[in-house]
Amino acid sequence: MNKGLLIVLSGPSGVGKGTVCAALRQKTTDLVYSVSATTRSPRPGEVDGVNYFFKTREEFERMIEQDELLEWAEYVGNYYGTPAKFVQEQLDQGKDVFLEIEVQGAMKVKQKFPDAVFIFLAPPSLAELEKRIAGRGTDDDEVIRRRMQVARDEIKLMEEYDYIVVNDQIDCACRRIMSIIEAEHCRKERIVPQLTTSLNEVL
Amino acid sequence: MNKGLLIVLSGPSGVGKGTVCAALRQKTTDLVYSVSATTRSPRPGEVDGVNYFFKTREEFERMIEQDELLEWAEYVGNYYGTPAKFVQEQLDQGKDVFLEIEVQGAMKVKQKFPDAVFIFLAPPSLAELEKRIAGRGTDDDEVIRRRMQVARDEIKLMEEYDYIVVNDQIDCACRRIMSIIEAEHCRKERIVPQLTTSLNEVL
Repeated sequence: MNKGLLIVLSGPSGVGKGTVCAALRQKTTDLVYSVSATTRSPRPGEVDGVNYFFKTREEFERMIEQDELLEWAEYVGNYYGTPAKFVQEQLDQGKDVFLEIEVQGAMKVKQKFPDAVFIFLAPPSLAELEKRIAGRGTDDDEVIRRRMQVARDEIKLMEEYDYIVVNDQIDCACRRIMSIIEAEHCRKERIVPQLTTSLNEVL
Repeated sequence: MNKGLLIVLSGPSGVGKGTVCAALRQKTTDLVYSVSATTRSPRPGEVDGVNYFFKTREEFERMIEQDELLEWAEYVGNYYGTPAKFVQEQLDQGKDVFLEIEVQGAMKVKQKFPDAVFIFLAPPSLAELEKRIAGRGTDDDEVIRRRMQVARDEIKLMEEYDYIVVNDQIDCACRRIMSIIEAEHCRKERIVPQLTTSLNEVL
């Protein structure tokens, strides 16, 4: 059986990763979505085990020690991480796994999974990004200022990704991401091993 | 203005390039289709200037001498080629140009346009390819035998392509090709230059 694709969607805080990911979930049925662990407090409406696994700092640090995380990072005072076992199991079963994570984490996944598909969700402009961060309404001015500084550093890492999707319209961004996944399944490196059986008289 | 993408669809004779290309034309409005020149006789229903520019050998050889062809090849006794000027003009205007050509020609285009996107349309199996070639009903046994030998040699060049689309169902093949084009527009190398304006405070 062919292994699944690991698709990593990342981008600066406030660019709309969560919104795009939620829209994508409504459109696709053949992607498995990884659920991250975090120590940050749930926002209104967020559900443990669905949006995140909400952990205490003690619980999270025990997961780090026991090497149970594919990647983890501390970001604006909180831990975020990806439980490794679930991802690997799904890939081994031939399922495509979708990771929506912070930029620091994506760079760590890249070291462990160089064959993964890295998609950077970019804001149309910095002004638009600041508007979105401020418009969220859950952060004070100091947090917004720090987030914008982090965002600038994160955008500089854009070149490390395979694809860049500008999040100008959510539907367009989703369509582009779905196209990227379909196209990656057609890449020569992935198809040739599959075709060697049916065309084995030739190859 | 950004230059357009050159998309090259190729694959063995009989795999269904023409059929897939015709279906694609009905689904997409933002691709410019290149029209090839050829010395072979029109098949029933084929129209000069639409399916091909039908040329005499003398006319075709004059185009070769005057370097008016992006690529050309002799295949089963006939010349096939792509008028270069039209393709370059469309790319310069930012339009995506779609070339449906034989495998020999695609390899020549690759030398001149290494940035083009090369898609190989593959048959599900060799048996299915032979069925399609024989089923066309316009060729005698000797032509079929020669086409199958050429097809085997062409399939060996599959690894030179960026993507492989198995032509199991025409609609699926079209959808995959459209996804590949959309994904290629999102590739980091193509997007970063476009984003430097809107994110210039950062990059």
